[in-house]
Amino acid sequence: MELSLFNILDVLGTVAFAISGALAAMNRRLDLFGIFIIAFVTAIGGGTLRDVLIGQTPVSWMEHIVYVYLIGVVTVLAIIFRNKLYYLKKSLFLFDTIGLGVFTITGVETGIQHNLDPIISIALGAMTGTFGGVIRDILCNEIPVIFRKEIYATACILGALAFVILHRLQVNTDLIYIITTLIVIGIRLVVVKYHISLPAFILHDKSED
Amino acid sequence: MELSLFNILDVLGTVAFAISGALAAMNRRLDLFGIFIIAFVTAIGGGTLRDVLIGQTPVSWMEHIVYVYLIGVVTVLAIIFRNKLYYLKKSLFLFDTIGLGVFTITGVETGIQHNLDPIISIALGAMTGTFGGVIRDILCNEIPVIFRKEIYATACILGALAFVILHRLQVNTDLIYIITTLIVIGIRLVVVKYHISLPAFILHDKSED
Amino acid sequence: MELSLFNILDVLGTVAFAISGALAAMNRRLDLFGIFIIAFVTAIGGGTLRDVLIGQTPVSWMEHIVYVYLIGVVTVLAIIFRNKLYYLKKSLFLFDTIGLGVFTITGVETGIQHNLDPIISIALGAMTGTFGGVIRDILCNEIPVIFRKEIYATACILGALAFVILHRLQVNTDLIYIITTLIVIGIRLVVVKYHISLPAFILHDKSED
Repeated sequence: MELSLFNILDVLGTVAFAISGALAAMNRRLDLFGIFIIAFVTAIGGGTLRDVLIGQTPVSWMEHIVYVYLIGVVTVLAIIFRNKLYYLKKSLFLFDTIGLGVFTITGVETGIQHNLDPIISIALGAMTGTFGGVIRDILCNEIPVIFRKEIYATACILGALAFVILHRLQVNTDLIYIITTLIVIGIRLVVVKYHISLPAFILHDKSED
Repeated sequence: MELSLFNILDVLGTVAFAISGALAAMNRRLDLFGIFIIAFVTAIGGGTLRDVLIGQTPVSWMEHIVYVYLIGVVTVLAIIFRNKLYYLKKSLFLFDTIGLGVFTITGVETGIQHNLDPIISIALGAMTGTFGGVIRDILCNEIPVIFRKEIYATACILGALAFVILHRLQVNTDLIYIITTLIVIGIRLVVVKYHISLPAFILHDKSED
Repeated sequence: MELSLFNILDVLGTVAFAISGALAAMNRRLDLFGIFIIAFVTAIGGGTLRDVLIGQTPVSWMEHIVYVYLIGVVTVLAIIFRNKLYYLKKSLFLFDTIGLGVFTITGVETGIQHNLDPIISIALGAMTGTFGGVIRDILCNEIPVIFRKEIYATACILGALAFVILHRLQVNTDLIYIITTLIVIGIRLVVVKYHISLPAFILHDKSED
């Protein structure tokens, strides 16, 4: 595995989602291996879905043992320093956001590398970014992140859109990675800080019950 | 993508499930992108599972951008005309039923095209037909459709069985598509109208608690 | 399909998980086809995930019709003799445990056969062993088995670890299968009998709410 910015981002997203998974699992009082498993599934979920949909198998974590070690080390650190992560919800939010930003971008890039249509690459990016968190929340019996009121999926769709546009403008790839990742993370930070949400659409249900 | 009846049915199922997903998402008060994502996942869920299990990757919606546009347009229309769809539950039921019927048949056909055993093709059809709705309901925190009292999976297994029998009898393919899709939809309509359900089996649990 | 111990174990795990799925579905008062579908998905879930991640498609149950017949027969028997399975929770636990032990080992073996790293083979084994039960519980709206207090995933990680070590020591393959399957099952039985659990890690959440 050569050391490109793509790989660095992939590793960063893996670490961030692993921490978010470990925190969620500790919050549910799972035991040691339960924590490791939730951390693992959260960290590899998005990338695994991306690889399976594309048909790039065995999926990437199977061919790069470094991910497994990394998740193991990060989980142990998250357990040891669990009470330094003072504010659980804030920590969970922060690491989830980093993972979201980074994985969205790796998903878009994978789509473009496979010559998929830009719109489809955006969809692949959104799925790659959100799937780990959704799986974590389903397994931990929480309301999935994509449901909470603040803009979530929207952030990653906008970041993915920026990626596709900058790619068309032939901006330097590494620069695109950094800008678009920061767009996703930035939108989430601003949106949650100021409780911004898109309007929902009211349904007047006239059914009997 | 040539325009065969198979493709027309696939498009019809996609549209129907997208509407059902958009309605379910609006009912949960998701924002614009949340609605789009649930519509998208519901519409492509069954076909994606089918393609992944068969090993036909990248999965079909990735190679046919038309699906993504279609889902986008349908979702916008569902939002605009949301209050014309007067009776939410009835509308949801109707579109879910059309999607179920159509996707069951595309699943069976895919199995037969890949020379899989007829029984396995029926199983593949049932999974393709039900998976989109199951995912929609899990994400929207509803009791999955396959659990509700009225006959659901049974309808699509019977339709798939009819498909396999008619195929053995070498009936014209397009005719098979239409008859079997109507069988699934017809069974669902009758069953829900008259509240028909198969008997459940009572378990006498003699455990302590 | 030649008759090796690997295949016998695979069949045994399929039968055990099918029974556990049928029991869980009857407990939820699903109708005949609902019971069959939950039995089916529980039985093939782990192996399907394993095959999809590895890229071995069409997945194995599609190429071996015997699995489908087996699940059908087992489900019918489970329904007929449902009230002989006196203690539902105990029966469910027993069959789930057998399935867990057997599928963990087939997952590790598949990883090793594909020349994957031992650590990754262990992860693949743990996923293969637990996925069927997790899917069953999610579909039946139960708390997933991996969350219950007693050691669960830990048992299958320890069994998988033993497999990898014995394989390095070049112990006879069939002997490895039997020993490691018994390790997983044995740990589960002892752990549940004596209510042994690993410590959870307490999080002091200092968030506002």
